[in-house]
Amino acid sequence: MKRIGFIGLGIMGGPMALNLVKAGFEVYGYNRSRPALDRLVRGGGKAAGSIAEATNGADAVITILPDTPDVEQVALGAGGVLENARPGLLYIDMSTIRPAVARTLAKAGGAKGVRVLDAPVSGGEQGAIEGSLSIMVGGEPDDFAAARPILEALGKTVVHVGGAGAGQTVKAANQLIVAGTIELVAEAIVLLEAARVDTEAAVRVLAGGLAGNRILERKAGGMLARQFKPGFRVELHHKDLGIAQEGARELGVVLPLTAVTTQLMASLRAQGYGSLDHTALLKLVEQLSGRDRREEGAKE
Amino acid sequence: MKRIGFIGLGIMGGPMALNLVKAGFEVYGYNRSRPALDRLVRGGGKAAGSIAEATNGADAVITILPDTPDVEQVALGAGGVLENARPGLLYIDMSTIRPAVARTLAKAGGAKGVRVLDAPVSGGEQGAIEGSLSIMVGGEPDDFAAARPILEALGKTVVHVGGAGAGQTVKAANQLIVAGTIELVAEAIVLLEAARVDTEAAVRVLAGGLAGNRILERKAGGMLARQFKPGFRVELHHKDLGIAQEGARELGVVLPLTAVTTQLMASLRAQGYGSLDHTALLKLVEQLSGRDRREEGAKE
Amino acid sequence: MKRIGFIGLGIMGGPMALNLVKAGFEVYGYNRSRPALDRLVRGGGKAAGSIAEATNGADAVITILPDTPDVEQVALGAGGVLENARPGLLYIDMSTIRPAVARTLAKAGGAKGVRVLDAPVSGGEQGAIEGSLSIMVGGEPDDFAAARPILEALGKTVVHVGGAGAGQTVKAANQLIVAGTIELVAEAIVLLEAARVDTEAAVRVLAGGLAGNRILERKAGGMLARQFKPGFRVELHHKDLGIAQEGARELGVVLPLTAVTTQLMASLRAQGYGSLDHTALLKLVEQLSGRDRREEGAKE
Amino acid sequence: MKRIGFIGLGIMGGPMALNLVKAGFEVYGYNRSRPALDRLVRGGGKAAGSIAEATNGADAVITILPDTPDVEQVALGAGGVLENARPGLLYIDMSTIRPAVARTLAKAGGAKGVRVLDAPVSGGEQGAIEGSLSIMVGGEPDDFAAARPILEALGKTVVHVGGAGAGQTVKAANQLIVAGTIELVAEAIVLLEAARVDTEAAVRVLAGGLAGNRILERKAGGMLARQFKPGFRVELHHKDLGIAQEGARELGVVLPLTAVTTQLMASLRAQGYGSLDHTALLKLVEQLSGRDRREEGAKE
Repeated sequence: MKRIGFIGLGIMGGPMALNLVKAGFEVYGYNRSRPALDRLVRGGGKAAGSIAEATNGADAVITILPDTPDVEQVALGAGGVLENARPGLLYIDMSTIRPAVARTLAKAGGAKGVRVLDAPVSGGEQGAIEGSLSIMVGGEPDDFAAARPILEALGKTVVHVGGAGAGQTVKAANQLIVAGTIELVAEAIVLLEAARVDTEAAVRVLAGGLAGNRILERKAGGMLARQFKPGFRVELHHKDLGIAQEGARELGVVLPLTAVTTQLMASLRAQGYGSLDHTALLKLVEQLSGRDRREEGAKE
Repeated sequence: MKRIGFIGLGIMGGPMALNLVKAGFEVYGYNRSRPALDRLVRGGGKAAGSIAEATNGADAVITILPDTPDVEQVALGAGGVLENARPGLLYIDMSTIRPAVARTLAKAGGAKGVRVLDAPVSGGEQGAIEGSLSIMVGGEPDDFAAARPILEALGKTVVHVGGAGAGQTVKAANQLIVAGTIELVAEAIVLLEAARVDTEAAVRVLAGGLAGNRILERKAGGMLARQFKPGFRVELHHKDLGIAQEGARELGVVLPLTAVTTQLMASLRAQGYGSLDHTALLKLVEQLSGRDRREEGAKE
Repeated sequence: MKRIGFIGLGIMGGPMALNLVKAGFEVYGYNRSRPALDRLVRGGGKAAGSIAEATNGADAVITILPDTPDVEQVALGAGGVLENARPGLLYIDMSTIRPAVARTLAKAGGAKGVRVLDAPVSGGEQGAIEGSLSIMVGGEPDDFAAARPILEALGKTVVHVGGAGAGQTVKAANQLIVAGTIELVAEAIVLLEAARVDTEAAVRVLAGGLAGNRILERKAGGMLARQFKPGFRVELHHKDLGIAQEGARELGVVLPLTAVTTQLMASLRAQGYGSLDHTALLKLVEQLSGRDRREEGAKE
Repeated sequence: MKRIGFIGLGIMGGPMALNLVKAGFEVYGYNRSRPALDRLVRGGGKAAGSIAEATNGADAVITILPDTPDVEQVALGAGGVLENARPGLLYIDMSTIRPAVARTLAKAGGAKGVRVLDAPVSGGEQGAIEGSLSIMVGGEPDDFAAARPILEALGKTVVHVGGAGAGQTVKAANQLIVAGTIELVAEAIVLLEAARVDTEAAVRVLAGGLAGNRILERKAGGMLARQFKPGFRVELHHKDLGIAQEGARELGVVLPLTAVTTQLMASLRAQGYGSLDHTALLKLVEQLSGRDRREEGAKE
């Protein structure tokens, strides 16, 4: 396991590829835009001119791309990974996509002797840079074992959670909990502010008890200050909630709270806040409660 | 600050009163049923035969009672705390009640020179016994300072969060986050199980990332095992969500996720699960998803 | 059955009292503000100087007042209806109030030999003027029979729906269907407009099929034109949905759609639209969908 | 306009094709299973052995098929309608499918000179047999004019509602109002029954006022009697709500009530009630309210 093709050198993929270089792998990166490739080369990686070039001769190929159709095209399309793959190649998709498509990739790979894993990540740009991502992996146990040294160069928590698609389902579950929790914290904050409670003191007590969560710990400060610089963008979380909804629909699972959260996230996006941090759900609770006036007044 | 009248020696109040005895206070307990009084006396406290007896001569009076009407009667009713209070008395209500009623108590007390605090707690029976409760306090800063030695004998996190009623509002916020988080975790678990994911591994990853929360840490194990022994009962959480809803209504605050959570908790209660732990929301997600059959089949 | 005391000569009560005069009853009106009394006197009624004066010597007393506490005070308070009632008096409350309070009135009346009916109305100011209201009546069958001649002077559809409080429960059911239907029509309209469908043609087809309802027939035109002059005000419908919610809570009935509708109506009110027609729910769907900009742009 | 190819002779399509025969058109039917074809032939139509045979020489082709992928295959697939169509052919899809796919069909047709309309129907089997359907049509005005004689042989209300896809969007709006209204009526009925109101009398009053709708008129009787024989099946309505949701998502429209209704319909289906009438939403409200026990008790 020496040579890795790495496709998708964006905000997440760029630093991840560099971490693989640092860990001693020979990394052939591919990206549509040039500057990202240059950064990889400056960091010790190599630039591939095509998916084929990144795939040929590789022991493993990693993709991390924005959305389901991107992965479908890069993996399954003409000139794509599977077309160029030799039997025995390890193909790890680390994008966040629909679990059903992850299973399709596994099946299509299997037919060509390619070993496929779905391995979406959580932890954001910071985690990608620090190599401290959480990675939830679906696929065959042997393939997971084979991929482990690679994944451990990228993340701190690397867990095998089941067969093909399982990683994506856990990611979907992660995203529904995160979005719902942000909304709950937003509802709490607006209630507290409306009641003229000392919200900073309140957040401290809340974070210390059974209501405690990572959003209260890491994000409530920004929410109280109305700083919605991403972080993780509303439009991406909106996409991910769509994946969760679709997965639930296929499995016949009913998610009442997630359905409402999805509408709220969709509203943020529809109102033009797609590029804010997902904690901007607070703005929506304020709007619904008629408490966004002051701010508007202040602007005038 | 030596002598304390303590009214309401139930699951929470009983051990709290004993902790005050241990901390050196002279505690006059009052309770409608005798056995709770006997336990206090065995622990070094004294039994008062009436609210009047508990109140007369006390430096502070504490009430911790099941619901808003109970507190209204004990505090404001004939023969109640305020009727028997001397000016300067510190009256601390530690029940979970409607913030509006907490403000009414403060006003009624103020008219008689009584200093009133609302100081609901979080942390359960365990916290009451260990003296490790979180206590969120509303009222005047001076009165909070005066009450501090008492409260610190009962809890580890004692925070002043604002004026009269603020403690109750923070408690309401706490309860809406806890209920919503349980529901989110329940939705995630049912989704994961339906997709045949390794749920224990999944819960571990989820708990480690931005989705992490106290419910995943402390309660998900019981949820996966379908153990719903309380803990905190559905019927009490249902009551508390009613308080949050009413508070929001009075303040003109809109809480979409909490509104749906409240319906779900109400459904559990309506279906006869009022005495189970609040994590039984998982049963409801399973029922809605048609996944409660196996279990029923297993019973037959 | 000749003489009627009529308490509450507002938008609804004023024309209703006049209809009773026209039907040949001797009507003693009482109202806190004078102009409404003058109108009744000009129409052939008599002015009572107090609740006592309206009640003494009356065969029947009718109240129609804004909210539950108003009725509680006028019926049960010092100097109120029951205090002044002779045994055998027929007391008909036509306000929209909590079913539980309607039952309390029936019980309190029963203890004094007063026959009490709850008889809330539907049909608006227009129906009150034309005497074409729908009246849903709770109480004893004999008392309903006795009240029938009075009620038929006020409404076209007069139906006995059960024991004490049943009229109020049916009114609550009426209000939850109306609010929910408005929201559904609003969601349909915003979806159609976003898809650039010919909405007037669409409303015609929708009204003709299984989706057909009174809101599409009578209110969709105003909604398409964004005319939200009441009609029935948001703040009143918000109050009525609160009654429905509370009734459901007491009965252990779970109303998921009504819970969400209630939050939406609460949002309209919180945003300062309380005095618009309830069809203004359309504004909220537009806002959530980011489609209220054009309008704002147009204003600038 | 004499000769029509008719593809899909199911519960709806079968009687519709016969109505076209009666109206004097020469109808070449195609269906995968033979008995439906035989019925058409017995009624005076002709049997086509393939889509090609139904399309060749036709002035118009109609499809009415279960779901979006069926239409995609029959219209766009190898050996499908467009492959066999001559320029100028009128292609009318009367299935209920995703508006986006209706627009794709129109574009694909346009590229070959085929005039495409989307014309979904409402009115059920009864309406199909009687030729009294409501038909909502999207497409070019000239094409609508050309199709009118055909459509008027099938339905009583035939309305042009906009460009390509508009018919499907109106159908989606229709389905969201119908499902939501059933749920509202179900919530009202359970509330009324829990309060021991005379529900038949109550339904009469409700149907007569602003709460009046087609469900109260035509379906409430069956709901009160717990008769859930379709009618329109839960699983089809579930599919249609999925279309509405997806359409809304694409357009950035937020539909909070529809999102919740969709979850409730999904729950019915997940619980194994997919083949019941959609009014079975009543069962779900009863279950959530713990009021399905009696029935179970009765069974024992």
